[in-house]
Amino acid sequence: MQAFIEAAIDANQEIAALLRRNEDDSLFYPDGRIGYGGDRSLKIDLIAEEIFIKRLGGFGRINSEECGPIGDGKDEIIIDPIDGSANIASGFPYYGASVALKSGVKAVASIVCNLANGDYFVKLRDETYRSNLYDPKKLPLERALKPQAGFFEKAYSHPKLAKALNKNGFKFRSPGALALSLAYAHGASFVAAAGAPREYDIIAGLHLCEDLHIFRNEKLILVSADQAVFERLKSVFIEGEL
Amino acid sequence: MQAFIEAAIDANQEIAALLRRNEDDSLFYPDGRIGYGGDRSLKIDLIAEEIFIKRLGGFGRINSEECGPIGDGKDEIIIDPIDGSANIASGFPYYGASVALKSGVKAVASIVCNLANGDYFVKLRDETYRSNLYDPKKLPLERALKPQAGFFEKAYSHPKLAKALNKNGFKFRSPGALALSLAYAHGASFVAAAGAPREYDIIAGLHLCEDLHIFRNEKLILVSADQAVFERLKSVFIEGEL
Repeated sequence: MQAFIEAAIDANQEIAALLRRNEDDSLFYPDGRIGYGGDRSLKIDLIAEEIFIKRLGGFGRINSEECGPIGDGKDEIIIDPIDGSANIASGFPYYGASVALKSGVKAVASIVCNLANGDYFVKLRDETYRSNLYDPKKLPLERALKPQAGFFEKAYSHPKLAKALNKNGFKFRSPGALALSLAYAHGASFVAAAGAPREYDIIAGLHLCEDLHIFRNEKLILVSADQAVFERLKSVFIEGEL
Repeated sequence: MQAFIEAAIDANQEIAALLRRNEDDSLFYPDGRIGYGGDRSLKIDLIAEEIFIKRLGGFGRINSEECGPIGDGKDEIIIDPIDGSANIASGFPYYGASVALKSGVKAVASIVCNLANGDYFVKLRDETYRSNLYDPKKLPLERALKPQAGFFEKAYSHPKLAKALNKNGFKFRSPGALALSLAYAHGASFVAAAGAPREYDIIAGLHLCEDLHIFRNEKLILVSADQAVFERLKSVFIEGEL
């Protein structure tokens, strides 16, 4: 497990170094291919995927957003090489990589890395922590005392719900990278995501949130560290018919 | 001018260093005071403001979000010490500082710094560039070739408009720090902000955007590098009655 996480950190370091040298933005050009997950791939999506395959392929069979299933092995590694591709191509510094190692149906080791500032978040069977690629001390993944805002991803597709949340005093951001927003959930008031996210987007992030309150059905994911916030959110979303 | 920008960079370095050492989150506790701009202040808002006053007070009279006008001097320095206070308190890495030096009614030197990753953006009379606190090479402030997303700040207060944008194919993020979103405007598809932002929030950001298309009335700011996007956005917002 530890070796898997270390290899994933090395992969994130390698991708972050490429991004720092990308002065002509050529890594953000479309590659022309459509990824396995249905989105149009950028060059950086494919290069990041190759880096993860190279460094993690020895730990199990890979199932990645761009290429789909590759290789064999008892354990399965679920990868979203770039979560927030539209952000990266638009200069918005909120994008990252999400990696989970599954044994059977359960994630047993996960890491989500914010490639725009180096923050990364790790969950193992008996250890959870956050750190940073450029300042590698381990910090506990703790709840914030008084978070003022949450995340509502894909709010733009659900204007009625966005209005209801606003009316009920829930301040939220919609930054467009769900794995990252789940990784930051401990510090925020809540994370909500409408629509049916793909396993690539959420498996590592939800694994990191295992100690928080989680509601999930086919149309909605709700996560909060705070039970009262969680219950009020559930009623807003259920009255809002999601 | 150059000395003013260098002093502002030093102030941002000092604030960023404090934030890196803030392991117990105590800088994010409310201070109990209400800032001059009407928001409840956090400790970091006031400490950041003190640092700017100390380093920039020699360049003119200060007008800052937390304390209002201070001192005298021919030129005026407009400061938002922390743009995105709710983000900083919620662990969401998108917050910064916005500083502009005004001579008469016009900004003549501006800097917006993303304190979460070190990116900063500078505009002087005859020079515009971006750089980073941790990697201080100067890069041109260029348009992205194919940005995929824009920013719509305060989208949550305008669900009808959010819906109209989405229907018209405009992908957007609402990350909750307007000065930063204006600083990143060159790389994005557009920046829109509804409501009546305060001068603290926008003076430096709009100065950075002087070479882009800008529309502004009492209810709306629209910025885009792309004329066709700009015109289409204007019609969506005007039909949406903003």
